[in-house]
Amino acid sequence: MTTDEQFLQFIHYGHQRFIPHLTLDCTIFGYHEQQLKVLLVKWRGINGWALPGGYIEHEETLTEAGSRTLEERIGIKKLFLQQFYIFGDSPYRTQILTKEKLVELTGWSIPIPEDCWLIGRQLSIGYYALVNHLSLEVKPDFFTQEYQWCDINELPELLFDHTHIIDKALETIRLHLYSKPIGANLLPRKFTLPEIQFLYETLLGKSLDRRNFPKKLFTLGLLNKLNERRSIGAHRSPNLYEFNQENYEKALEEGLVLVM
Amino acid sequence: MTTDEQFLQFIHYGHQRFIPHLTLDCTIFGYHEQQLKVLLVKWRGINGWALPGGYIEHEETLTEAGSRTLEERIGIKKLFLQQFYIFGDSPYRTQILTKEKLVELTGWSIPIPEDCWLIGRQLSIGYYALVNHLSLEVKPDFFTQEYQWCDINELPELLFDHTHIIDKALETIRLHLYSKPIGANLLPRKFTLPEIQFLYETLLGKSLDRRNFPKKLFTLGLLNKLNERRSIGAHRSPNLYEFNQENYEKALEEGLVLVM
Repeated sequence: MTTDEQFLQFIHYGHQRFIPHLTLDCTIFGYHEQQLKVLLVKWRGINGWALPGGYIEHEETLTEAGSRTLEERIGIKKLFLQQFYIFGDSPYRTQILTKEKLVELTGWSIPIPEDCWLIGRQLSIGYYALVNHLSLEVKPDFFTQEYQWCDINELPELLFDHTHIIDKALETIRLHLYSKPIGANLLPRKFTLPEIQFLYETLLGKSLDRRNFPKKLFTLGLLNKLNERRSIGAHRSPNLYEFNQENYEKALEEGLVLVM
Repeated sequence: MTTDEQFLQFIHYGHQRFIPHLTLDCTIFGYHEQQLKVLLVKWRGINGWALPGGYIEHEETLTEAGSRTLEERIGIKKLFLQQFYIFGDSPYRTQILTKEKLVELTGWSIPIPEDCWLIGRQLSIGYYALVNHLSLEVKPDFFTQEYQWCDINELPELLFDHTHIIDKALETIRLHLYSKPIGANLLPRKFTLPEIQFLYETLLGKSLDRRNFPKKLFTLGLLNKLNERRSIGAHRSPNLYEFNQENYEKALEEGLVLVM
């Protein structure tokens, strides 16, 4: 099929495959060395950055829809996505998308039928993931023209209400930090205490006490002290640590309470 | 309009008012004197208990949809509903509702068109509220034949995946207990320490330490000790407490960390 044929198919028959009025948007946070970034994409023909997202098929679970969307859009497989909110209250989400607005937004020159399934209210289910973005190889598909990992403190103006979605995702992650262990996929296997503290500080967007914070992780039994040091300078060779696998898994399952 | 006319209108033209494939279901927890209950309703003509719920209008926010649904179904106004999950992965939610299944489920003898908007996939947005159920006056509408406040430990078999929705709501409330103050609308204005402890224990479904738990509430500045006692027996006159309004409001806004 040519591109135009693909678009025509989507516009005319998309509702046979997808649930109308409901999309999902994925906020993928990437952490590496004290920087927190978010994955933004630019759709072909649309001038503006947005989160990767898509529609949900009639016969797939929401979890499957999330995985399929990421795989199709940016070639990423098997990312653990966490559902966190459904967006339907913001001014953008309560507007009815008209045919005219749809043309303006997409720049499509293809004729759009009056009763096109894409017209109407658009709600969005928010998912987030937190990864070491150096470990992800992004392979954009035809519809994704460009992508970037953008520092969360330097976000450009985004399409739709995607800035609001990122804010809410960050708020949710911060809340989860108090009840779930994190870090296993974000830090090197052996890490220093400053490294894990930087991770928490970056996610929380605030400083934590240098003496109390590690103590709390020890109290929860999350860290094993290794008999190894890293040499990073003349008089600096901080001790290395690793996660205590058993306690980490247990905390993932049962939850924990971390006071910071 | 007669009932049959109302039903016909809903079946044939409901999609002009409502978003298809997406419902919302409200888990209303009622707490009173160490008992945690949940509000169940029986729809007219359908044999089985379920949560109160309904569809979302094209032009209302999700929050408005929640309030309107509760007001229409059970006559309850101005209840603070908290969105907590969208259900789309459970086996029930991934089934496609057929015309035959719809007839079986509803017992409707009215002819249903082949392309009825009610047919297809049904996702549900979960909302919860936590109230003192003695303070709520439930006034069921025409579609709601019966209602009951049911102890959460004695739930009957529910329609659809509503048992799963209640479980997930309870899990969410338990998580929120660690980061949000609760109780202002659930306890008498002046209460004893055992009363607030019973509230937390009932919600968590487990016992808490009699000495440590109140200490933690004091540390957070949530309680004012009053110069009053309640007389409940010959040698029993426990001290009364009230919430510290200022700190309570602040904690609601900023969150807190309660270790229990």
